[in-house]
Amino acid sequence: MSAITQQLSKLGITLSTPSAPAAAYVMAVTSGNQVYLSGHIAKQDGKPWVGKLGLDMDTATGKAAARSIAIDLLSTLNAHLGSLDRVKRIVKLMGLVNSTAEFTEHHLVVNGCSELLGEIFGDVGKHARSAFGVAQIPLGACVEIEMIVEI
Amino acid sequence: MSAITQQLSKLGITLSTPSAPAAAYVMAVTSGNQVYLSGHIAKQDGKPWVGKLGLDMDTATGKAAARSIAIDLLSTLNAHLGSLDRVKRIVKLMGLVNSTAEFTEHHLVVNGCSELLGEIFGDVGKHARSAFGVAQIPLGACVEIEMIVEI
Amino acid sequence: MSAITQQLSKLGITLSTPSAPAAAYVMAVTSGNQVYLSGHIAKQDGKPWVGKLGLDMDTATGKAAARSIAIDLLSTLNAHLGSLDRVKRIVKLMGLVNSTAEFTEHHLVVNGCSELLGEIFGDVGKHARSAFGVAQIPLGACVEIEMIVEI
Repeated sequence: MSAITQQLSKLGITLSTPSAPAAAYVMAVTSGNQVYLSGHIAKQDGKPWVGKLGLDMDTATGKAAARSIAIDLLSTLNAHLGSLDRVKRIVKLMGLVNSTAEFTEHHLVVNGCSELLGEIFGDVGKHARSAFGVAQIPLGACVEIEMIVEI
Repeated sequence: MSAITQQLSKLGITLSTPSAPAAAYVMAVTSGNQVYLSGHIAKQDGKPWVGKLGLDMDTATGKAAARSIAIDLLSTLNAHLGSLDRVKRIVKLMGLVNSTAEFTEHHLVVNGCSELLGEIFGDVGKHARSAFGVAQIPLGACVEIEMIVEI
Repeated sequence: MSAITQQLSKLGITLSTPSAPAAAYVMAVTSGNQVYLSGHIAKQDGKPWVGKLGLDMDTATGKAAARSIAIDLLSTLNAHLGSLDRVKRIVKLMGLVNSTAEFTEHHLVVNGCSELLGEIFGDVGKHARSAFGVAQIPLGACVEIEMIVEI
């Protein structure tokens, strides 16, 4: 059992079957030694996790949604690569938060994803990041995150 | 005539003179074996294609605007590379939709670009993607798309 | 004294101590021959430079904020690389403007960053770019910019 598999197990995380794209694209593309993962929207019970921060969802719930996206991103990556042991570095996240014009805690929401990556990958999981509030996300999802990984 | 040129011809697509940047930047930069294309805003008759999805523009029109951006992106890329035959893979799109907080079909709008890339490039055109709704786009344009290409 | 150091001196720019990330990520990651810089928010006197374009901040002030982010990005990059002389090309910016749904001069705001990079780096500073208006930015900042650099 690899270090990453052990860490997932220790955290009680089971990778899922990667979700199909909602439209005319693919969920992951390898270019050179980088993998580009499409924006993954938050889901609950297989359906879009709908909500808007600052209106009908609080920061803690948004953070839980971002954490669940981390698991979905890793599920896609695992299926794409065959093994998460091939990950050399989590390079960058772009974290989009469906928010009102008043909400200003997007960074705390996206931490749900960033912190889990740190718990699983340690130093390899330390990434650059942008987080910000958008007008809306496909299907009304509360959070959407894309990721670049070095292999 | 190359496969890509034939496919453009078959689809009745004529590449245009690439538009000049609206500000202090360039439309394409090569870094290693990747080309980074600047965000291209939708245009009609050479002017910004103004509109907001969910307010004064429907999904089908937004999709047509996204399709027109695909042609503009390829026009820029063709001028930058000298030939689209140098394209090894369309790696990633970021598709920004000028939308209200209620509109949730950004993925269907950006499909206008994604589907055309698939028609022209086949498997080489299968890309990762993020699509989302933004508060506003420069000059009031309805859609803006940036692209990363492997050569 | 290198060309870049001379140019900074000529422009009267002093690089600052890079700011710490506001959350669970790092400010810069090197992947291959590229450096990915996290989204840097505008700051004034060490605090978030708060404002919304189209509501309580004009384009000229937003542009000044974007210019200050360029200095912060270069401060982070200098600390990360040891020297800005290692910069081979500024590849791409993503410029987020905290704006109302009516404001349409995001490109002029982000020029504050783009133009300064051009003044400092000349042709090496000519970058691809996307600029757009977002619903809100962490901590209420008026502008946030991320950057990819080739070394």
